[in-house]
Amino acid sequence: MTIKRVLSLFFIVILLFNFLLADEGMYPISDILKLKLRSKGLKIDPKELYNPDGTSLIDAIVMVGGCTGSFVSKDGLILTNHHCAFGAVQAASSKENDYITNGLLSRTRGEEIPAKGLTVRITASYRDVSKEVLSAVTDKMDLAERTKAIDKRMKEIVSDTEKKNPGKRAEVSEMFAGKSYVLFIYTNLKDVRLVYVPPRSIGEFGGEHDNWVWPRHTGDFSFMRAYVAPDGSPAEYSPGNVPYHPQRFLKVNPDGVEEGDFVFLLGYPGRTFRHQTSFYLAYEENHRLPYVANLYDWQIRTMEELGKNNREVAIKHDARIKSLANTMKNYRGKLLGLKRLHLVENKRNEEQLLQQFIEADPQRKAEYGSVLEGIGKVYREMSDHAEAELILDYHRSSSQRLSSALTLYESAIEMQKPDIERLPAYMERNVAETKQSLRQGLRNYYEPTDKAFLKHTLMQALALPENQRIEVIDKQFKGRSELEIDQTINQAYAQSRLTDESLLLASFGKTTAELEQLNDPFLRAAMMMYPIYQRLRETRQQREGALSRLSALLVDVKQQFLKASFVPDANRTLRLTFGRVKGYTPADATHYGPITTLRGVIEKTRAEEPFNTPQKVVDLHRAKDFGRFKHRKLNDVPVAILYDTDTSGGNSGSPIINARGELVGVNFDRAFEATINDYAWSASYSRSIGVDIRYVLWVTQKFTGADYLLNEMGVQ
Amino acid sequence: MTIKRVLSLFFIVILLFNFLLADEGMYPISDILKLKLRSKGLKIDPKELYNPDGTSLIDAIVMVGGCTGSFVSKDGLILTNHHCAFGAVQAASSKENDYITNGLLSRTRGEEIPAKGLTVRITASYRDVSKEVLSAVTDKMDLAERTKAIDKRMKEIVSDTEKKNPGKRAEVSEMFAGKSYVLFIYTNLKDVRLVYVPPRSIGEFGGEHDNWVWPRHTGDFSFMRAYVAPDGSPAEYSPGNVPYHPQRFLKVNPDGVEEGDFVFLLGYPGRTFRHQTSFYLAYEENHRLPYVANLYDWQIRTMEELGKNNREVAIKHDARIKSLANTMKNYRGKLLGLKRLHLVENKRNEEQLLQQFIEADPQRKAEYGSVLEGIGKVYREMSDHAEAELILDYHRSSSQRLSSALTLYESAIEMQKPDIERLPAYMERNVAETKQSLRQGLRNYYEPTDKAFLKHTLMQALALPENQRIEVIDKQFKGRSELEIDQTINQAYAQSRLTDESLLLASFGKTTAELEQLNDPFLRAAMMMYPIYQRLRETRQQREGALSRLSALLVDVKQQFLKASFVPDANRTLRLTFGRVKGYTPADATHYGPITTLRGVIEKTRAEEPFNTPQKVVDLHRAKDFGRFKHRKLNDVPVAILYDTDTSGGNSGSPIINARGELVGVNFDRAFEATINDYAWSASYSRSIGVDIRYVLWVTQKFTGADYLLNEMGVQ
Repeated sequence: MTIKRVLSLFFIVILLFNFLLADEGMYPISDILKLKLRSKGLKIDPKELYNPDGTSLIDAIVMVGGCTGSFVSKDGLILTNHHCAFGAVQAASSKENDYITNGLLSRTRGEEIPAKGLTVRITASYRDVSKEVLSAVTDKMDLAERTKAIDKRMKEIVSDTEKKNPGKRAEVSEMFAGKSYVLFIYTNLKDVRLVYVPPRSIGEFGGEHDNWVWPRHTGDFSFMRAYVAPDGSPAEYSPGNVPYHPQRFLKVNPDGVEEGDFVFLLGYPGRTFRHQTSFYLAYEENHRLPYVANLYDWQIRTMEELGKNNREVAIKHDARIKSLANTMKNYRGKLLGLKRLHLVENKRNEEQLLQQFIEADPQRKAEYGSVLEGIGKVYREMSDHAEAELILDYHRSSSQRLSSALTLYESAIEMQKPDIERLPAYMERNVAETKQSLRQGLRNYYEPTDKAFLKHTLMQALALPENQRIEVIDKQFKGRSELEIDQTINQAYAQSRLTDESLLLASFGKTTAELEQLNDPFLRAAMMMYPIYQRLRETRQQREGALSRLSALLVDVKQQFLKASFVPDANRTLRLTFGRVKGYTPADATHYGPITTLRGVIEKTRAEEPFNTPQKVVDLHRAKDFGRFKHRKLNDVPVAILYDTDTSGGNSGSPIINARGELVGVNFDRAFEATINDYAWSASYSRSIGVDIRYVLWVTQKFTGADYLLNEMGVQ
Repeated sequence: MTIKRVLSLFFIVILLFNFLLADEGMYPISDILKLKLRSKGLKIDPKELYNPDGTSLIDAIVMVGGCTGSFVSKDGLILTNHHCAFGAVQAASSKENDYITNGLLSRTRGEEIPAKGLTVRITASYRDVSKEVLSAVTDKMDLAERTKAIDKRMKEIVSDTEKKNPGKRAEVSEMFAGKSYVLFIYTNLKDVRLVYVPPRSIGEFGGEHDNWVWPRHTGDFSFMRAYVAPDGSPAEYSPGNVPYHPQRFLKVNPDGVEEGDFVFLLGYPGRTFRHQTSFYLAYEENHRLPYVANLYDWQIRTMEELGKNNREVAIKHDARIKSLANTMKNYRGKLLGLKRLHLVENKRNEEQLLQQFIEADPQRKAEYGSVLEGIGKVYREMSDHAEAELILDYHRSSSQRLSSALTLYESAIEMQKPDIERLPAYMERNVAETKQSLRQGLRNYYEPTDKAFLKHTLMQALALPENQRIEVIDKQFKGRSELEIDQTINQAYAQSRLTDESLLLASFGKTTAELEQLNDPFLRAAMMMYPIYQRLRETRQQREGALSRLSALLVDVKQQFLKASFVPDANRTLRLTFGRVKGYTPADATHYGPITTLRGVIEKTRAEEPFNTPQKVVDLHRAKDFGRFKHRKLNDVPVAILYDTDTSGGNSGSPIINARGELVGVNFDRAFEATINDYAWSASYSRSIGVDIRYVLWVTQKFTGADYLLNEMGVQ
């Protein structure tokens, strides 16, 4: 290798790794005090953010549903997103009280309505348990055993911890696969109520059309409140419960932020995949993302078709369409980003350089020489079976009937095992939740949709290439005409009684023999399919075992190579990210500013969903009735803001906090180009979107007249 | 009326009329020397632009097809748009030589291919003929007579002028309806040839998706050449013809322009409607625009469906789809703009103020008091019959067969009249062109499409409300089943011989008796429909008579009110417009810069039409092979530019000229928000789009290697 070539490679290394590392970061709270945040723009003591020896801002942060929220009053008032409350508002709505359309305002605490299905979780403490977890593994174990051993040890730690901390929830989170694990203890509040939710025409303004899009004009916020038993302990809903008093709450700053201001977010980002290899990205790009995007596209169109002339059916489909459309658009954005940023190619180049580094030293070569090759092998094997496995995954989750039946059948098998050995859904600590989702599944069940979805994946399975056939399905359906398949499906739906809620719940945990006596066609199907899913689970445990071992080695050698330590990928644990309010250039000759205004809402407004702004908003804007929430330079109420922090799904509802530790907005989305965030951070494209606190307060005060909420938050 | 109210009204007047007048202007060449262009940024003597006593830049401007072009060499080389050459390139293409896809390059003059259907027209002189035209009108005439008298007098002037100027074309253009008329004399060159047309993937990059859109990345240019007989006189194509030597040609400046630079355009803008009333705008908004947009939408989908699996059919539909889609998107943009700018409401407010001004003085009231009311009455009557009239218009133009038959039947009637009394299409001077369009109509004829279109408008006619029924159609089809209607249509198509080109042309100008002997079902249909179209023509002559008289009065009193003189609406006569290279803000938090680059082409490029950039362009960009055409600050080749001049359809191909009178680009489109331009100019939204000369030259030199064209233009 010539000097020139070495230098040019060196240059590429700098370039590539810079690209991945520059400014990115969803920092675990344990890193907060190392970040030198004051030099980055923070104007208060970082110990105000995180203080291992006392209270701090992180005590004001909650996980609510899959979202983040924050306490904004001493009486447990929580500010989060509209879309985080959507399911609960839908559940509270009826034909008479259409809270989705009209919004929901509880004028007194007594009026606050239970938020069904939502709990509030607060991070109480954490502890590194890597050694305890990894001590369960021995060199003699095969790969599946390795996975099972780690899983079991994690469960044991959780179980022990919960026993020692009654009323708390424990969770062991993998920070780096096969390498580091942290035990989190959470306070879990079960009585959550809806306080104020704006009408959909504000809270979901722009709908799917604007989802993942900047410039944005959505008032995506809602207020809830956490309640506890009169003695202060977490309790199920009861009229006698009292508002929870959090250890800390965030001070709301009604003056908002300006372009260029320092901001930070605290929240529970879901999953990122920054440390994954090119093999993983190629699998995503070539298999999973296109399969799911296309399937959801079809499912959405089917639901829209079936609900076209039937408002009741349309309402049932509403939340699911929303959710699928959200994922579909995200995946399409990711596919675009993968292509546009040449991510697979770049990762491959990085890995080549890393491999050269490994091979340059005999000792390193011995230790790490086959790591990348090994990971590649796992993904090759996955790719070879990708179609069949994706169909099996989505076959199960697409049809509510099949899914319920499989849950029952699994419960029959799992509940016979010692608690610690069960699949998580069937462990005592999770059974209530699993039953709840069985119940939930029935709520928006619509048989024609369920049938269509079942048939669709069935037909996909029947079209699989020879080397991926699913035997059980072939045996039942191969060579049969579509008419015959339809007949079989129709018969099964007609005979099955699994839509009977009490039967469904009563059957949970029965033995397989008892289930057989029910003579239900879907339970028979579940029985036949069970071994296939069981085998798939085992295959995946093996892969996971291999990847866990190899990933740990990969992180080691990458750290040697780059002489840097890494931030672990997001994993639904509490993280901090910081940045600045900042526009961006999504395309040639196009620049987006970082603050939108009410004028933009009016511009987009027209007489049809999702752009049908309430007339009162239009009138208030015409009258320039902006109250104290006017942005002086823009001469209008700011609506949404854009900033270059590093966020992911799960950061929905995260408070946007200014340099003084005050809440100035609520995070709710990312720009379309930033859907690629989950795979790679980009200084040019990674932008998150929040609703400006001034819009939150303006809507709450001027549009809704809920001044008492402003008072509760101390806003004058 | 209180003082306060008067003041506020005064304020509104200033506001509203400013809105309409500020900076707009497609100035007739007779105004050029009055414009004080040097104070606006021009750096040469305005007489260089227009010199009534000698040659000037306007001598370099041509009308080619419906577009503008400009001479860029002493040998008659013309630079215009790709889309202006499209029809001619399509006509020159065959399966073997797909010039549309591959582009077309004539490496020697001998290779230059005739541009079928295109002629080049140069403005030779003009003269105000208002008095001559209006002296034909007497107070005793009824409204239809008035229209006919004006039409006839205009024809007489044209006919006299052409007699006195052999080889020239004359045209009388209405500048202000019922008020001022100008006679233009044109030199008409009939031998036009294609020199260089880039492949569609450059010349139409972005296709319909990007049409009417900024930021733009389309290389929408082409080169042609005008030829004349060896003695210099205009002549039909002949291999012996020689290149035309224009009186002037534009110097090409390969350095292009910068943001903020002064530019002006010369060209033939089609039609604008700035002086029209709220009644006209309401008719457009409520009737014509939505009808046409929806009809074209349906027609496009039908053509796409029919061409889906048949490449040959798809090619036949290509130009028509392009043209309909262009209009459809333009109309949708206009509908959006009408709504967004509240144009009808604003015009109504203006008209109220004008009416107050009129009524404030008894003399004025007597003279102008009923002008607005009178115009309103005409449009009310039009609105009452809008559906039927629109169906009749588009019934005729949608089906080629019906259209040909009606042309033949009309020719039988019109050709019996003295030349001067005929409909323009049947006057001797136009007969060749009319026959040419009959021929042209057969070229891309595809029977299933023609049938579907005919049936569609027929079904629309059968669904008309009671007060607008079309008797002849009712008599034939009312109460009959769709199957019966289909059968009738199929029979008619099977029997008719009007797709036989020689029969079609031979039948032109025959008597009605002779046509009857042909016993053709479409000619029978034409005979039955003729009286309806004849009646509609008369109704429109009456309306036009009324509007012509009233519009003249309206312009008078508006000029008294505003103490200003107006620029006449565009009418396909030579105009100048000036402005600056300038970005804009189409929506909240969004800013578009005024120069796009090759980088943007690469960003949009993907493996499917209309974004399939040729690999060579991608490679040249990767190699940064920009030649002398690099923009220093942008470090890339500029592709398209944006500027706030006032343009309309017909300005396609207009040269963009810098302050020194040098060509720096070719105009080809407007921003989406600027489709509203035809009704109202807006300083915020009116932006035109041109291809940057640097991209024209880069493509011609680096991509195509046609250096000799650069040499011919004197570019080193």
